[in-house]
Parts: sequence; C-alpha cells; structure tokens
Amino acid sequence: MRREALGIHLLIEMYGCDPHTLKGVDYVGKVMERAAKESKTKVVEIFFHQFLPYGVSGVVVIEESHYTIHTWPEERYAAIDLFYCDPKVDVDRAIEVLKESFKPQHVTIMEVKRGVLPEVHSFVKQHQEEMVS
Amino acid sequence: MRREALGIHLLIEMYGCDPHTLKGVDYVGKVMERAAKESKTKVVEIFFHQFLPYGVSGVVVIEESHYTIHTWPEERYAAIDLFYCDPKVDVDRAIEVLKESFKPQHVTIMEVKRGVLPEVHSFVKQHQEEMVS
Repeated sequence: MRREALGIHLLIEMYGCDPHTLKGVDYVGKVMERAAKESKTKVVEIFFHQFLPYGVSGVVVIEESHYTIHTWPEERYAAIDLFYCDPKVDVDRAIEVLKESFKPQHVTIMEVKRGVLPEVHSFVKQHQEEMVS
Repeated sequence: MRREALGIHLLIEMYGCDPHTLKGVDYVGKVMERAAKESKTKVVEIFFHQFLPYGVSGVVVIEESHYTIHTWPEERYAAIDLFYCDPKVDVDRAIEVLKESFKPQHVTIMEVKRGVLPEVHSFVKQHQEEMVS
C-alpha cells in the first residue's frame, strides 16, 4: 500500500471515565507507558505532571512521534493523542489498554493525516524549481 | 462569553519550510520555548529529541496542556500542535514566532475543540443519575 502521509494522529475523547483512574500521575503514567510499550513503540522519554488537588498532564515521546494525555477527573474526561509515523505501531492495542484502564462510557476518535505527501511534495518540488530557475 | 470546551487544540501543518531551521534540537528547541513563553504559557517541562542525521521531536509541557513539534527537514515539513486550556494564552503570538522561525511557504491550521462541554456534562450527569437510581 502506498504511504499517503508522514504520520497518523488520533485525537481521542474519553467521556464518563472512572474519575479515580484520572486523578494521579502514578496510575495515569503507568497506563500511558503500558499503552506505548504494548503498541510496540520505542519509548524515548516519559514525563508526567501532577495538578493539585488532582488531574494529570503527561507525554510519552516515542521514536515514532508522541502519545499525550490530559485528564479532568472532576469532568470524568480525558483528552488523549496518539501520533505515530510508523505503520507498524499497533495503535489498536494502545486504545484497548486506555479503554480498559480509564473505563470510559463513551469514546470518540478523530483520525487526522499529518504531512499529507502530495501536499508536502508539491512544496518541496516548487522549491527545487525555484533553485534551478 | 460562555466557555464551550475544556481545551482548544490547533493542528498546524507547515509546508515548504527552510530545511536548515528544522534539522537540530538547538534551534527548534529554542523556537518552541520562545513560542511558549511569548504566548504567555507557564512552562512545566521541555524535552527535545535529536534524530540522526537530522530531524527533531519535541514537547513543551505547559500548565495549560502542551505544545509539540515533529520535523522532517528532508520534506521541508513540520507538524506542530498547540493544545491549551486557558483562553488567556496568546496563541496568535506563538504562531507568529513559529512562522518567523521556520519560514514556511504554506501553513494550514485545523482547530479542534477538546472536551466539548455539553458532551462532557451529559456523561457526568448520566453517572450522577445512575448513582441516585
């Protein structure tokens, strides 16, 4: 299959989560790390920030781009991004891990292609032509 | 003005950039940090990863969520995300800094509302009703 874009970016909205699972970095951090590892990404760096009294912002930088999460336990809501630029990433497994762990009542996933190749290449080509002319 | 969502997420595609500006963590990291500071975010953590021979993945975790970047110098392309949950963030200034620094020929910006409040609250309410019933 021809590659259409440099990366795939999933914007995941998890509504009606179990609020206790969203409160602290210990649990949220472990879930995100497990989602990254079980989806066969290469983890480069993990950073999680605890908000007071509760709530977490976190990022897992992976060789293939990034996974991030922001949680609002009082709203039972988490915003999760899975951005990856290698089709070998088993993103479905990551989503399973996240659903099992945060127990959302409702999930929406928006898929956005990043760096769509015909568009990227039209600007690379244009520049090369400018250099020659 | 009534708040409609917990966060705003801008997905920015920068095409036809000056490829030299996208190669290394020193420059890209400084630009992203400046974009975060000049847009009046509170920086929590900065992490940048250098790919060999060139290319950068980086994240600025901010109190208000995150800014991230992934660069493909050979494609003259950068994928940038600005995700913020405080309307006081001066995101237009961040975009100016990024454009001045990477000199793209073409930029597209997709705005996505994260945690749309009527939707978030419908699940919180549903849960409260379940608890009572």
